[in-house]
Amino acid sequence: MTTIALDCMGGDHGPQEAVAGAAALSIERPDLHTILVGDAAQIGPLLDSMTYDPARLSVRHTPHFVGPEDVPREALAAHPDVSIAEACELVAEGRASAVVTAGSTGAAILAAARRLGRIPGVRRAALAAVTPTEQRHGPHGDPFALLLDVGATLNVSSRDLVTFAIMGSAYAAAISGNDRPRVALLSNGTESHKGPPEVVAAHAVLAELGEIEFAGNVEGLDIPRGSVDVVVTGGFIGNVVLKMLEGIGEVIADLASDAYARKFLWRLGLTMLSSGIKQIEAVMDWESYGGAPILGFCQPVIKAHGRSRSGAIANACKVAAKAARSDMVRTVERAVARLPVPEEEEVGS
Amino acid sequence: MTTIALDCMGGDHGPQEAVAGAAALSIERPDLHTILVGDAAQIGPLLDSMTYDPARLSVRHTPHFVGPEDVPREALAAHPDVSIAEACELVAEGRASAVVTAGSTGAAILAAARRLGRIPGVRRAALAAVTPTEQRHGPHGDPFALLLDVGATLNVSSRDLVTFAIMGSAYAAAISGNDRPRVALLSNGTESHKGPPEVVAAHAVLAELGEIEFAGNVEGLDIPRGSVDVVVTGGFIGNVVLKMLEGIGEVIADLASDAYARKFLWRLGLTMLSSGIKQIEAVMDWESYGGAPILGFCQPVIKAHGRSRSGAIANACKVAAKAARSDMVRTVERAVARLPVPEEEEVGS
Repeated sequence: MTTIALDCMGGDHGPQEAVAGAAALSIERPDLHTILVGDAAQIGPLLDSMTYDPARLSVRHTPHFVGPEDVPREALAAHPDVSIAEACELVAEGRASAVVTAGSTGAAILAAARRLGRIPGVRRAALAAVTPTEQRHGPHGDPFALLLDVGATLNVSSRDLVTFAIMGSAYAAAISGNDRPRVALLSNGTESHKGPPEVVAAHAVLAELGEIEFAGNVEGLDIPRGSVDVVVTGGFIGNVVLKMLEGIGEVIADLASDAYARKFLWRLGLTMLSSGIKQIEAVMDWESYGGAPILGFCQPVIKAHGRSRSGAIANACKVAAKAARSDMVRTVERAVARLPVPEEEEVGS
Repeated sequence: MTTIALDCMGGDHGPQEAVAGAAALSIERPDLHTILVGDAAQIGPLLDSMTYDPARLSVRHTPHFVGPEDVPREALAAHPDVSIAEACELVAEGRASAVVTAGSTGAAILAAARRLGRIPGVRRAALAAVTPTEQRHGPHGDPFALLLDVGATLNVSSRDLVTFAIMGSAYAAAISGNDRPRVALLSNGTESHKGPPEVVAAHAVLAELGEIEFAGNVEGLDIPRGSVDVVVTGGFIGNVVLKMLEGIGEVIADLASDAYARKFLWRLGLTMLSSGIKQIEAVMDWESYGGAPILGFCQPVIKAHGRSRSGAIANACKVAAKAARSDMVRTVERAVARLPVPEEEEVGS
């Protein structure tokens, strides 16, 4: 039995979708238990209206949560028992193995840093996301790669990039079933001397490390191509890249939105074009994934999209359970322990 | 009469395409004169095989040039008279008004910095490129926006971002005929406090400046949408973004490369899809543009793609002439003079 602490508050649709996802999961997956963290006055009536297995669901009540308009630091200071903090506390107490939230990423990072603590040797958290790729990855032929960091740590040191590479490798291995994911640094050229100083320095460390399958530098071209399984960069660039891909997905969807055109494409068996568009749309659809991991903490924390519906929440809980059952955190700990002692580095926020 | 100094060496196709482009231009455009800079032993026989107007073409001989495999700094040190340096020298001497090259970007920046000098108050050069957009821009409805820097200055200060915004605005106005291009900073959120410190500081200065049409921050989403005319960022991110767009263009071209599918799309009048793909391909096709300006120097320097054929070289010369005839450099000088006195800033390479 694996227990998930699910922050039910803070998503765009309120507790409704989170509770519905957990209710469905309680029936579908007898190996999981979900603790619903949030306002019992709202969660109770929602549960009353749903079918669920009461042996696999419980509630941790707290009336406070971090809403979409709140500044995370202020909200956590005002109410130390906000739902995301309580979810992390359940894991810290050993009563759950992983946290899932559709609420504020910033609040999740703050709460996890305070209650769960970082993996020894990891100084910054990284948010990872999947990006659509032309090439397939891993034993299941997934049409996407992992990109991190996409916004948790805006300015990174070389040490941060190295730990992100290690964490991305461990997470991809745990979730995709690909034992040795190929990991690369994003730069402005493939040569080892290309890029800003932190990228050049991280390249030198990773080339010697041997703990992960380091494929050197990749360029912007390689993101849509999908030359590697895991692409590592700082949070500012990662955020720009991820949102650009979302924007491109929207533009392509606009181009393809004419129902007449779509229908004809299918009828004519122009499957290459149709399936290309379909694939891009599917990959852009967060619902199918089950969330983005916030890596760097001693237990898994999965951020589901704010717009998540019940199915996406249930998927996020499944991914969280998979991560909790893997030896991901220990793999990261082992690799980080082998890193050279860090020199003093110039690091931003 | 506007005279262009054309570095004929260093492009992927050697002097053949540059000389052919200039020869065609000498007949097409009586208002332009081109000085072919490079090895006269190669240029002479090429001219002999072509039709051209000898009144509008001349040659500046130098046997040395920076090849694609050379390290620019070393090549310039070994032979101070490499062709790109001689082209810049012609402009410095007042014998030409703009430089065009299909050779190394790094060599062009170095040579221009030494021979032409930077616009007073501009500390770093920026390479600008066009990116395909869904929205149209300017009086001609161009389906692209300007992005800078795409690789000249990897690490930028807030002052650099501000000068890039001013230069991008002036160039877009000179070339597109759009008097008040909308200019934005690329960040990880639209709010003025979002982004790394240099972006936040640049935002504050631009919001007060009044010299350009500052539209605030845009996100990665806005690059394919094309919400603004000019997007400003540092060279590392700009390079990643530009190459990502190239990669996406290639992936889409792959999806659409089946001739059967293409033919049917056209026959069925599925123009939205077909024209969308065609538009992306057209925008990805550097030949149609005529090169990327290297901004920051006292005279225009236009970098044509290394793969440029004669048509692209001729276009680059036309763009260079347009820039040379505009008051772009004076506009930049005037705006930069109004900037607050820069504080000491922490700047990378």
